[in-house]
Amino acid sequence: MLDYSTGPGLTIDHVRETYERIKPYIRRTPVLKSDYLSELTGADLHFKCENLQEAGAFKVRGATNAVFGLSEEKAKKGVATHSSGNHALSLSWAASKRGIPCYVVMPRTAPQAKKDAVRRYGGEVTECEPSTSSREATFAEVQARTGAEFIHPYNDPRVIAGQATCSLELLEQTGGLDAVIAPIGGGGMISGTCLTVSNLAPDTAIYAAEPEQADDAYRSFKAGHIIADDAPKTIADGLLVPLKENTWHFVKNYVTDIFTASDQEIIDAMKLTWKFLRVVMEPSSAVPLATILKNPEVFKGKRVGVIITGGNVDLDKLPWMKQSGA
Amino acid sequence: MLDYSTGPGLTIDHVRETYERIKPYIRRTPVLKSDYLSELTGADLHFKCENLQEAGAFKVRGATNAVFGLSEEKAKKGVATHSSGNHALSLSWAASKRGIPCYVVMPRTAPQAKKDAVRRYGGEVTECEPSTSSREATFAEVQARTGAEFIHPYNDPRVIAGQATCSLELLEQTGGLDAVIAPIGGGGMISGTCLTVSNLAPDTAIYAAEPEQADDAYRSFKAGHIIADDAPKTIADGLLVPLKENTWHFVKNYVTDIFTASDQEIIDAMKLTWKFLRVVMEPSSAVPLATILKNPEVFKGKRVGVIITGGNVDLDKLPWMKQSGA
Repeated sequence: MLDYSTGPGLTIDHVRETYERIKPYIRRTPVLKSDYLSELTGADLHFKCENLQEAGAFKVRGATNAVFGLSEEKAKKGVATHSSGNHALSLSWAASKRGIPCYVVMPRTAPQAKKDAVRRYGGEVTECEPSTSSREATFAEVQARTGAEFIHPYNDPRVIAGQATCSLELLEQTGGLDAVIAPIGGGGMISGTCLTVSNLAPDTAIYAAEPEQADDAYRSFKAGHIIADDAPKTIADGLLVPLKENTWHFVKNYVTDIFTASDQEIIDAMKLTWKFLRVVMEPSSAVPLATILKNPEVFKGKRVGVIITGGNVDLDKLPWMKQSGA
Repeated sequence: MLDYSTGPGLTIDHVRETYERIKPYIRRTPVLKSDYLSELTGADLHFKCENLQEAGAFKVRGATNAVFGLSEEKAKKGVATHSSGNHALSLSWAASKRGIPCYVVMPRTAPQAKKDAVRRYGGEVTECEPSTSSREATFAEVQARTGAEFIHPYNDPRVIAGQATCSLELLEQTGGLDAVIAPIGGGGMISGTCLTVSNLAPDTAIYAAEPEQADDAYRSFKAGHIIADDAPKTIADGLLVPLKENTWHFVKNYVTDIFTASDQEIIDAMKLTWKFLRVVMEPSSAVPLATILKNPEVFKGKRVGVIITGGNVDLDKLPWMKQSGA
């Protein structure tokens, strides 16, 4: 097994080794097309549907790599993370595949549905107060008690190498692309995309798409150093977290450009995709299409891979439903 | 080209010829899995996602076969049908692929979204009053004026042969199944399924799934002759039409059994699929899963193909949204 200790140390060999490790567990998700959406944008769009992974998100790739890369001895003690989103779900799912424990620290204010989903895959939820200090203290307790291996949602090279396998499939499935675009939050998916695409298809442009209301990656990219957002708030709740050193390395060196879209534009793009591609996806997954619609001159006439990152939504609270206070 | 004049005259050669004819236009839709739904039902479920056809329904298969099987001379005058649903959409879409006119008679009370969708594919909508007599009179006028070829939504052997190509793919994609299940309305999809499966996989059971509130096929099957429903009303609005002689032939001779489900069971199954398979599908498409959940002993331990027939829904009026009067 290769060394996965640093982000900048990752090579295409890490991606290939990772793919062999996780292939028996993850799905090779389909690449879907909508002629209507291609005509609407003037671009030939190829949607890589990671929402169709069993746990509903690309995050199973990184989580599975982290879980199955552990030595027998380490694995016995399990894995742990703090997350209220798809990483917690995906890590629980991956741990269940290896039959090892998974410990998740979540704020007690997280939606019951998310806690239930983690438990459905056998994850053990420990609740904390919704503050950074409580989360860190609670997580330290859990780790001290269990000795479980911490798997960061995105700033972990094992996780980045896992996410990189998505573009490996996408390039094979499409036979090559002029551009790839994915949402950016902490930067795990974009970093993996950069790792694979810069090695295997260096002429393919790599775009990141971000909510205007959580545009820390956009501002970091323009400034040349990490800027963290102060309490961002957007419908794309998978994209609230800041870049960290391992993901910043890839964003800084390999991303072609970052585009942003407003929450209303994200909701409109989400509804368009549900209607014409007919898959269930999260608001975060709609940010790329929203930015393509806003920047047609960049994508026109191009073959574009669009990564649909996840499909875990509350069907009773869709953003276009009338909510009290909305 | 073989003779497509009668339903009972159809053979597997018709299916193969049809498949060659329509293959350049239709999608080989993916077969998706949900481990969760398989565990829930105790059956190994393989969902054939015809909702992922460009026009959102399996009906493009039959429509494309009918359109592309026409002689040059006949094709020039176009095709015509009366339908307020997926057949109208699919026929317009198929006609646009050949560049010929498509005339659709729809009740003026049909949803604006359906009329818009037909027009999006270049179909010409003629409105009639919402009565059988008005529909027939209006349709006769349109046909007299245009000389267009009438393509019935399901009682046409060209259409049945087209729908039969869905199971051709499904059997190839899965490598064989213990059972196949599909919704039944007029019986076009079930007839095509019978045609292919009885020839290529005679040991595979063929089940039809029908809403309790429109159970004319169920009652016909038990009685041994066609019984038409008197103004059925169900959330599964794609399944309101009665069997006709060509589809009755297949139902009577090749269907293993027909199961029914209540509207609430259909809505529950629809929501389950959206949540765990993460595809957008119509209430009609959820009837099979609803009946599998009701009859676990029939499906337990079996490899089951489940045909998801369509995905054209009004996202602003989902059946689990609170509606006034609901």
